[in-house]
Amino acid sequence: MAFREKIRVAVNGYGVIGKRVADAVALQPDMTLAGVCDVAADWRPRMALAKGHALFGATPDHAAAMREAGLEVAGTLGDLLSRADIVVDCTPKRVAAANVEAYRKRGIRFIVQGGEKHDVTGHSFVAEASFAGATGRDSTRVVSCNTTSIVRTLTALKRAGLLARARGTLLRRATDPWESHLGGIMNTLVPEPEIPSHQGPDAQSVDPGLDVVTMAVKVPETLAHLHYWSVQMTRSASKDEVLDAFRASSRIALIRMGDGLDALNAVKEMMADMGRPHDNLYEVALWQDMLTVQGDELFYAYMVDNQAIVIPETIDAIRALTGLAAEAPASMALTDAALGIGAIGRS
Amino acid sequence: MAFREKIRVAVNGYGVIGKRVADAVALQPDMTLAGVCDVAADWRPRMALAKGHALFGATPDHAAAMREAGLEVAGTLGDLLSRADIVVDCTPKRVAAANVEAYRKRGIRFIVQGGEKHDVTGHSFVAEASFAGATGRDSTRVVSCNTTSIVRTLTALKRAGLLARARGTLLRRATDPWESHLGGIMNTLVPEPEIPSHQGPDAQSVDPGLDVVTMAVKVPETLAHLHYWSVQMTRSASKDEVLDAFRASSRIALIRMGDGLDALNAVKEMMADMGRPHDNLYEVALWQDMLTVQGDELFYAYMVDNQAIVIPETIDAIRALTGLAAEAPASMALTDAALGIGAIGRS
Repeated sequence: MAFREKIRVAVNGYGVIGKRVADAVALQPDMTLAGVCDVAADWRPRMALAKGHALFGATPDHAAAMREAGLEVAGTLGDLLSRADIVVDCTPKRVAAANVEAYRKRGIRFIVQGGEKHDVTGHSFVAEASFAGATGRDSTRVVSCNTTSIVRTLTALKRAGLLARARGTLLRRATDPWESHLGGIMNTLVPEPEIPSHQGPDAQSVDPGLDVVTMAVKVPETLAHLHYWSVQMTRSASKDEVLDAFRASSRIALIRMGDGLDALNAVKEMMADMGRPHDNLYEVALWQDMLTVQGDELFYAYMVDNQAIVIPETIDAIRALTGLAAEAPASMALTDAALGIGAIGRS
Repeated sequence: MAFREKIRVAVNGYGVIGKRVADAVALQPDMTLAGVCDVAADWRPRMALAKGHALFGATPDHAAAMREAGLEVAGTLGDLLSRADIVVDCTPKRVAAANVEAYRKRGIRFIVQGGEKHDVTGHSFVAEASFAGATGRDSTRVVSCNTTSIVRTLTALKRAGLLARARGTLLRRATDPWESHLGGIMNTLVPEPEIPSHQGPDAQSVDPGLDVVTMAVKVPETLAHLHYWSVQMTRSASKDEVLDAFRASSRIALIRMGDGLDALNAVKEMMADMGRPHDNLYEVALWQDMLTVQGDELFYAYMVDNQAIVIPETIDAIRALTGLAAEAPASMALTDAALGIGAIGRS
């Protein structure tokens, strides 16, 4: 790395995902954060400046409003893009689709998040499943939090030759913590109207070979999603074989109820105690003592931090598109080291 | 019925289940409520008196405390049992097991609820699956709310020749509404530590032939349980065939997301609008538009009112033990008519 220029990364949209991507980029040895762009002129961009990030307004009007609010603005989105090799779009659903035209016109590589459709880039990304396919492309889509967790876990079983088909029930957190005051649900459960829910087909946009069906329901909490799986294996296997399959992925953390990690809040508290920014749980946190094998059937549950799980994948996607790494393991090793991933449940 | 004496039913324990059983007994044409027995001396037994129920104290001390609180007490549990042909025990878990000795000594027929173990009576009851086996017995156990819903739905599929095996994820309400102030969970999800959870084996205590595995998680709401099922059928079937199988049971109400019944609270509000006591949902409320068939696989979700679903089964269990009805359909027809069951989703 010593003689190579660092890749300059722009982050467009400084919200729940954008601010975590910006933090993560700043920690990578082979990347530099060109700056972050947003439309807000309140406490949120002020936090970006406090971290030393260069701040840009989405349009001249936004930049002007930011200046009026006393924020130090380095320019507009156009200015930011001219200083970057690649842009990670973290703007809300549908806003990103409009930005894509601008990125293409400018000829800058770009990454969109899972709220966008597969067709927007024609490629869907999870490091362990589709890194190679992203190499040399000008864009990719990092799939949603739920889909990322599904592809990570089912890929682990597939690599071990154990996966026939998987059927999952997804408990989705009602709203993000910081938006709790804007409305969520209270004291009820809200099933997704249709079975299968969209996450199964979305996982197939990464790996068309996955036989997966999902059902989803919104639950009144904000911490994380929780998935329950019933998997038909290709053959009878021991619990140890299955755990070894999951252990082979650094992005799956094996946790234990018996270790006191017996609810979502306990796991989040451990992330805080580990000193992770925003208490991020980057891994799929899978309960190893709960996991059960009955002959050729497998049952397990895991927790998905919807705000954090896509962050390492986004970093890997940057390396795939820009050629910073030729294969997933090399990129993942760098990302994991920078973010402290891989320490949980390895013992 | 004209020339037959009504069966006299005692209800021991006037809590969430007991008060609903008492109300339901009072509505049956072939039963009379001998009275209710409890240990509390506050507003709760006062409500029993307001309904015209005879009130008994569990012991002389309890009866004295009730009298001190200004309640009109008809005697103790012993007095109540001497005026009854059968007793429904609705006392808390483990208290019932101690009462059983007293019932046996007295030679009175008795019913315990699903909190007790199968061995306490040696027979577990769901009207559509095990009515015949209860005939002539001196006791039975009405299984828990979750187990009742599982046996009802899987029995419907089994009767239609469609059931091979069923795998379910159960979202359990955190606490009963009226006990919300005594503690529950907030903003988290608490998985049951073990897979499979106990409901699958419990369903097999009613029908050992069921191939069923369940996983369960506690969620922060009080309204009802919600089950998601993935069923392997014996063959490919149409959605209409499956719906017809469920329709054959009066205790399964087919509801629709498209009818505005898109969350637990909406279904409960409809029960209130129907004028049902305590907004009771006696049926398994199964979403017919959400239900999906893929070849020989079936996916669906339903809602279980944990406070109400066992009430009609308890009434049927009284008829089975006392010989008021020789077969399930005759008893169920009486129960359904008295409680207004069977009107939802039949059109």
